Amino acid sequence: SKEVWKKGGRMFSILLAVHLALLACTLVSSGAFEKIAVHDYDVFFLLTVMMLIVIIWIIFYLVGTSRCPDAILCKDSHAGPIWLRGGLILFAIFSLVMDVFKIGYYSSFYSCLSAIKIIYPIVQAIFVAVQTYFLWISAKDCVHVHLNVTRCGLMLTLTTNLAVWMSAVTDESVHKAHSKLKKNVTEEIFRWLLKAGMRSNSAEECNCNSQICQIFKNGYFWLYPFNIEYSLFASAMVYVMWKNVGRFIDHQSHHVHRLKFRLFRRTFFVGIVLGLIILVSGLGVLILYEVQVNSSTEYSKKSQALSMYYIFNIVCLGLMSLVCIGGSVIYRFDKRDMDRHKNPTRTLDVALLMGAALGQYAISYYSIVAIVASTPRDAISALNLTYALLMIAQHTFQNIFIIEGLHRQPPKEDHKHDSHQKDLYGLTFVNINAVSLRVPDSGSTLAPGTASGAEPIHPSELVRSLTTPKKMNWRRKFLREISMFLLLSNIILWIMPAFGARPQFDNDTELNFYGDSMWPAIVDICLPFGIFYRMHAVASLLEVYIMS
Amino acid sequence: SKEVWKKGGRMFSILLAVHLALLACTLVSSGAFEKIAVHDYDVFFLLTVMMLIVIIWIIFYLVGTSRCPDAILCKDSHAGPIWLRGGLILFAIFSLVMDVFKIGYYSSFYSCLSAIKIIYPIVQAIFVAVQTYFLWISAKDCVHVHLNVTRCGLMLTLTTNLAVWMSAVTDESVHKAHSKLKKNVTEEIFRWLLKAGMRSNSAEECNCNSQICQIFKNGYFWLYPFNIEYSLFASAMVYVMWKNVGRFIDHQSHHVHRLKFRLFRRTFFVGIVLGLIILVSGLGVLILYEVQVNSSTEYSKKSQALSMYYIFNIVCLGLMSLVCIGGSVIYRFDKRDMDRHKNPTRTLDVALLMGAALGQYAISYYSIVAIVASTPRDAISALNLTYALLMIAQHTFQNIFIIEGLHRQPPKEDHKHDSHQKDLYGLTFVNINAVSLRVPDSGSTLAPGTASGAEPIHPSELVRSLTTPKKMNWRRKFLREISMFLLLSNIILWIMPAFGARPQFDNDTELNFYGDSMWPAIVDICLPFGIFYRMHAVASLLEVYIMS
Repeated sequence: SKEVWKKGGRMFSILLAVHLALLACTLVSSGAFEKIAVHDYDVFFLLTVMMLIVIIWIIFYLVGTSRCPDAILCKDSHAGPIWLRGGLILFAIFSLVMDVFKIGYYSSFYSCLSAIKIIYPIVQAIFVAVQTYFLWISAKDCVHVHLNVTRCGLMLTLTTNLAVWMSAVTDESVHKAHSKLKKNVTEEIFRWLLKAGMRSNSAEECNCNSQICQIFKNGYFWLYPFNIEYSLFASAMVYVMWKNVGRFIDHQSHHVHRLKFRLFRRTFFVGIVLGLIILVSGLGVLILYEVQVNSSTEYSKKSQALSMYYIFNIVCLGLMSLVCIGGSVIYRFDKRDMDRHKNPTRTLDVALLMGAALGQYAISYYSIVAIVASTPRDAISALNLTYALLMIAQHTFQNIFIIEGLHRQPPKEDHKHDSHQKDLYGLTFVNINAVSLRVPDSGSTLAPGTASGAEPIHPSELVRSLTTPKKMNWRRKFLREISMFLLLSNIILWIMPAFGARPQFDNDTELNFYGDSMWPAIVDICLPFGIFYRMHAVASLLEVYIMS
Repeated sequence: SKEVWKKGGRMFSILLAVHLALLACTLVSSGAFEKIAVHDYDVFFLLTVMMLIVIIWIIFYLVGTSRCPDAILCKDSHAGPIWLRGGLILFAIFSLVMDVFKIGYYSSFYSCLSAIKIIYPIVQAIFVAVQTYFLWISAKDCVHVHLNVTRCGLMLTLTTNLAVWMSAVTDESVHKAHSKLKKNVTEEIFRWLLKAGMRSNSAEECNCNSQICQIFKNGYFWLYPFNIEYSLFASAMVYVMWKNVGRFIDHQSHHVHRLKFRLFRRTFFVGIVLGLIILVSGLGVLILYEVQVNSSTEYSKKSQALSMYYIFNIVCLGLMSLVCIGGSVIYRFDKRDMDRHKNPTRTLDVALLMGAALGQYAISYYSIVAIVASTPRDAISALNLTYALLMIAQHTFQNIFIIEGLHRQPPKEDHKHDSHQKDLYGLTFVNINAVSLRVPDSGSTLAPGTASGAEPIHPSELVRSLTTPKKMNWRRKFLREISMFLLLSNIILWIMPAFGARPQFDNDTELNFYGDSMWPAIVDICLPFGIFYRMHAVASLLEVYIMS
């Protein structure tokens, strides 16, 4: 084989990514503090250079693979499913709009800014367009030429996306902190901070006073969540492409189930209706909360808004937890085989779900410790404690439900009417004697290490799975209702923090307990992962819905 | 097979570990700050409870597996090699001594402390003794009974070790910060801090004034590094045991090479001699540095000590980098096959090396940014910059060298005089026709997923590896020299930060650039990983030495 040692080939690209990511992380985190002599244009300069290199590499890749017929010998059918690519395009469009707003905003006071602040959104717009096209057409590729160059290029793309994500998240947190500051502290400090962000001394000229400039500014901050999600979606797809470089897929063993998205067939509509109710009422709660918390300085109004927010979330999370437990119970009675095929996309999905949940877990644990240890315990504290506990429970149960769902074999329904079209692999399984004879034989002759990787499947189980009765339809219907309800609930739980609800700061308990520097640091680092979790759960739940 | 879906079985234990680890992390990080109303005895209480549960579980495990003959069907020969277990026992002994010192220290002012402060070291001593015995006899086990209970128990053990590690690292950082504070700021603040740490108000009675109490206190802080390493070593071994739960090892394909530790055979002694010179001069530099930096308040003396420290490190890191590059070049000409067998121990080793290096990388990158952006550039800054750059280079080259070394097949030397004793697997490979016929055959009959996992090895490569000339001995000698030199150099680079050298704080550049809260946070979080990297590199280099 051409590639002697895959790990070694990957090592160099990993090292490249690690170093670039650390450099970007250092600059971004230093640039976030006004006191530190690293400015945001340093960060923008690095990001612009990285994006330009990625654009050039993508063009070379597209030209190179289209010319060379041996470049892509096989495609990974699991990679880049249509809903992920669709979501990517949706977020890409919003990102482009955001870039237009940003260009408009910065060109309002062009004279007193460094040029990089305008070049950055322009380059970013090109980057988003090129990368979206690239991922749309080559997300499934298993590349077999220039392995090392392709790996490095993909890792560079991944790192660039992560760096853009870090920069956007930091930018948004700083902006949030400023707008909080604007209300609480005197105007003077705010002006000083704004001035420190600019290079010129003529502060008057460089303020965003015109109507259109304000619209641009507010517009691009409202569109930030979409750009943040775009970077993460693109990162996930690029990572899967990187895992697939140099991979050979055995087409015989790789039976593709062309599942179709059948939204309005065989459902009771209960899940959708309940989910839509939650979604709409959640939007109402969010708007009320934002208005009440931001406009009024009265304590009673604020605590009323907080109570409303917590109660809605407690109801929503409680329902979702119950539904997830119900789904897991249904899986206990589900006799479908577990799917053990190698599938980098799914492995990544599971890792991201588990990893991103850590962000919300951490916030909740810190909240719980603060509430338990603080002495004045009022109704808000009790609500906050319940909210934190339910948050942990809901993430845990939902992860279990999604992971179990992703690992099921797709339904065997269609094998009744086209069982004669089943591939060779299916036929081997029907012949029980052949299976029981072949498995130990191949296990001893193959290269070592594979025997423990793929445990031989016991024949009796296979027979059971082939002879299961068809009356389990109600289970699948329930699973669909459940996943549709969870999907819609996760969308509203994504919208709330992504569009600015921060009960973590509006409630004083944790701020007083941990102090003004530690608690914002915890929330600002962990919340982006929590927000990403919601969006990623939506994508995974859509997959569970389609598979069940 | 008994276990339908391994991932599902693992999921529950992972969730348990994640929640416990986050709870411990929350309490430990909150307990580190004087301002936050979480006290160290809250942390000690949690840790004591966790350790007691683990002790009980270990006793049950040992009784259970000794009674049930089917419990351990096979052993993983790669897990728990003798030098890792030897190192564990060494660190365990030092940890026990530390616990004795701690008990002595706290019993000096028993009256004004909560009881948990004395119970904690007692329980920890029992925990260390029981766990070391447990790991000594069962590190290689592949358990096949009570899979889920064993997984949860192992994850609990792992989490407890990590929590103890976190607590020890935090405790040490706080102590270091206090002893720095003692010199710089007035005595008053220090007393206030000490008082805040105690519960009673009678500060006079509770001070550590007696001679013996001071000895105990200094003793246990000097022994902290060993306890920290003990927790990490134990965690690594427990993790491998957890990976091996329910694993079946194919004994035919699993050829165990009983490698012996031959220290004084076939070496030129150059590596050892050079390494020992570095080690001894490093110890001298460390002592001189500590004395000069801690005793004198003069700026010139301090900068002299810093220069000496940086120059020694630059020489040492430069030499190590060159040697690593040389080793990697030698590997390029090495015709030994890459070892692709499944080996959880090695996978963990590689992941830990890459992951732990991130700590030092982060510190170096933050240093570089600070030095480049700061304006007054003197000789110390130049040395610091060189030091940071070389640190990054050395970690990178050393990781490449170690990872390549770990993935080589053990030498084929002994197959000359006992080729007739080779196992079945070796014989299959000699018969080239058999190989070329069998590989495609078994690839198509096996369960899917294995085909892409284990790529068929091309026959011509096998023949080449079997017919390589024996004259490559000089290469192996060089590799041995290199790994022995690197091993000794890593020991001194472990000793320096582990026993208190903190040029990151003695040099003002970064402190002034990032401020008094951000730079200590960066160093205190990242340096423990950097220190662990050195110790882990020593263990891995010993393995490379023995294998080459």
